[in-house]
Formats: sequence, C-alpha cells, structure tokens
Amino acid sequence: MQKADIAKRLSRIEGQVRGIAGMVEADRYCVDILDQVSAVTKALQQVALGLLHEHLGHCVADAVHAGGPQAQEKIDEATAAISRLMRS
Amino acid sequence: MQKADIAKRLSRIEGQVRGIAGMVEADRYCVDILDQVSAVTKALQQVALGLLHEHLGHCVADAVHAGGPQAQEKIDEATAAISRLMRS
Amino acid sequence: MQKADIAKRLSRIEGQVRGIAGMVEADRYCVDILDQVSAVTKALQQVALGLLHEHLGHCVADAVHAGGPQAQEKIDEATAAISRLMRS
Amino acid sequence: MQKADIAKRLSRIEGQVRGIAGMVEADRYCVDILDQVSAVTKALQQVALGLLHEHLGHCVADAVHAGGPQAQEKIDEATAAISRLMRS
Repeated sequence: MQKADIAKRLSRIEGQVRGIAGMVEADRYCVDILDQVSAVTKALQQVALGLLHEHLGHCVADAVHAGGPQAQEKIDEATAAISRLMRS
Repeated sequence: MQKADIAKRLSRIEGQVRGIAGMVEADRYCVDILDQVSAVTKALQQVALGLLHEHLGHCVADAVHAGGPQAQEKIDEATAAISRLMRS
Repeated sequence: MQKADIAKRLSRIEGQVRGIAGMVEADRYCVDILDQVSAVTKALQQVALGLLHEHLGHCVADAVHAGGPQAQEKIDEATAAISRLMRS
Repeated sequence: MQKADIAKRLSRIEGQVRGIAGMVEADRYCVDILDQVSAVTKALQQVALGLLHEHLGHCVADAVHAGGPQAQEKIDEATAAISRLMRS
C-alpha cells in the first residue's frame, strides 16, 4: 500500500468517525451506529495491514539483509506489534 | 455510557486518526504508527461496547418487556451486530 | 444454537486442534498451520455467538421480565462477557 | 516458540475445548462457558503468534536472504496469513 493510498484511506476513516458522531448526535438507531463502528474498525485494520506489509518488505527485509542481531530484533518487534493489533 | 461521553470519545478518536495521518505524512516509524492504529481500534471497540450496553439496556429490554415476536427479533439483531463487531 | 449443535461443534473443534498438533509434529508449512488456527478461532467464535444468543434470549430476557436490579446486573454481566470475547 | 512448547500448548488447548464441552453438557452458567471460550481463543492466538514469529525468522528471512521474487512472495503470503488471523 503506497503512502498516498494510506493517506487517502485515513482521511476517509476520519470522515467516517465524524459521521458516527453525527449519528449519535441525531439519535440514530444503535445497531446502525454499531455497524458503522464495525466498518471503521475494519477499514483501520486494512490500513494496519498495509503499513505492516510495507514494514516487512522494507525495514524488516533490510535488517535481515544487513544481518547481525538487529535482524532478529526487527522480527521480534514486528511480532509484538502484530500481537497488539490482534488483541485490539 | 452516556451520549455525551460517547460524543467526547468519538471526537478524541477523530483527532487520533488525524494524528496517524500526520505520522504517515512525516514518515514516522511504522511500528509506532501501527501501535497508534491499535490504540484507535481499541478506543473504537470501547465505544461499540458502550453503545451495545445502552442498546441491550434500552431497545432490547423494552422489546423483551413488550413481549411478542419483536423481543426475539431484537435479540437476533443484537447478536448479529455483535458478530459483525467480533469479526471487525 | 441448540445444546446438541454446540456439543457437535465443540467436538469438531477438538478434532481440529488435534489436527493442528499433528501438522506441527509433521513439520507442515507454517502458513498452512496458521490458516488452520484461524479456522479454529473462527469456529470458536461461532460457538461463542451461539451461546451468547441463547444467554440473551433466556437468562437475560428472564431477568428483564422479572425486573428489579437483577435485570441491569445481567445486562452489565453480558456486556462484560462480550468485551472479553472481543479482546480475545 | 519451540516446537515442543507449541505442542504442549496445543495439547492444553485440546483439553480446554473438551472442558468446555463438559460445561455445556453439565448446563453450566453461560457466562462462565463464554469466558472459557475467550480463554481458549486467546491461547490459540498465542500459538498463532509463536508460529508466525518462527515463520518470519526462518522461512521469510531465508527467502529475503536468497533474494529474487520469492522474497516478496513470502512477505505477501505472510501478510495475507496475518490478515486472516486478524479477522478470525
């Protein structure tokens, strides 16, 4: 996922969050609001996957190429970040 | 969770999403951006739980009190919304 | 979801977990094992939704009918259980 | 996570799934059963993270070292597997 694509998605997500706030303000039906929250969460996870894909393909791959202890450190760090994404 | 509390949380989430866009723009470290995405996802899930709690305590409870087929329909609908939240 | 259906699903999940252990033992490809873990997690979430649906339709609905502080307690308790499912 | 550790965890998870089946059979309280399902799901996610960590540190790192199109393919494949884990 290119930087411009990520920026566009985040801008759309920001608008969706504002839309949810508007739905709450207008006392819209709870289940409709919940479904919007599900949609935004899914959109955020897609952004996370896009960022992670770049991270593995650049930072982590570069560290692996360079070798040494930094390679394993980058892999540990990426796994820990994935763990936080999965629990969120 | 009161409507005012939900509104405040959504406004904070909107700011956090804008902050993530700023981090991407500034080429901040991927893992730091990923952790912000995890934090926003978690904050959204808290909003969803707050909305769901209100929904069960009002719409669903009212339908159960009123009885008839609408009670079961509301429970089916809430379960389906929870399912979408869990997969998101 | 009926009790017999839940029992059947859990028995299938138990077999799937044993199957994953066999894949690890046989040094099968990591991504194939990961996909089996994803499948089992999804199957468990379906069981959780089935149990939750029953719980809302029986225990929670009965407490709402009976009224009094127990109704709200049951709704709080169900929301807390949903929260733990969403974070798992 | 070593192969022996993963095997031990999976064997424990298999026992926990059997335990949940026993709770359903014994008509134990729904919320207690749901909490056990949450615990097993969390344990499975830990196994998935352990497998993923090994996968990144071996298969993916080896492909990156070897270079060529296979390196990117392995990173794409790992990201897709992570995506399936996150949605499960």
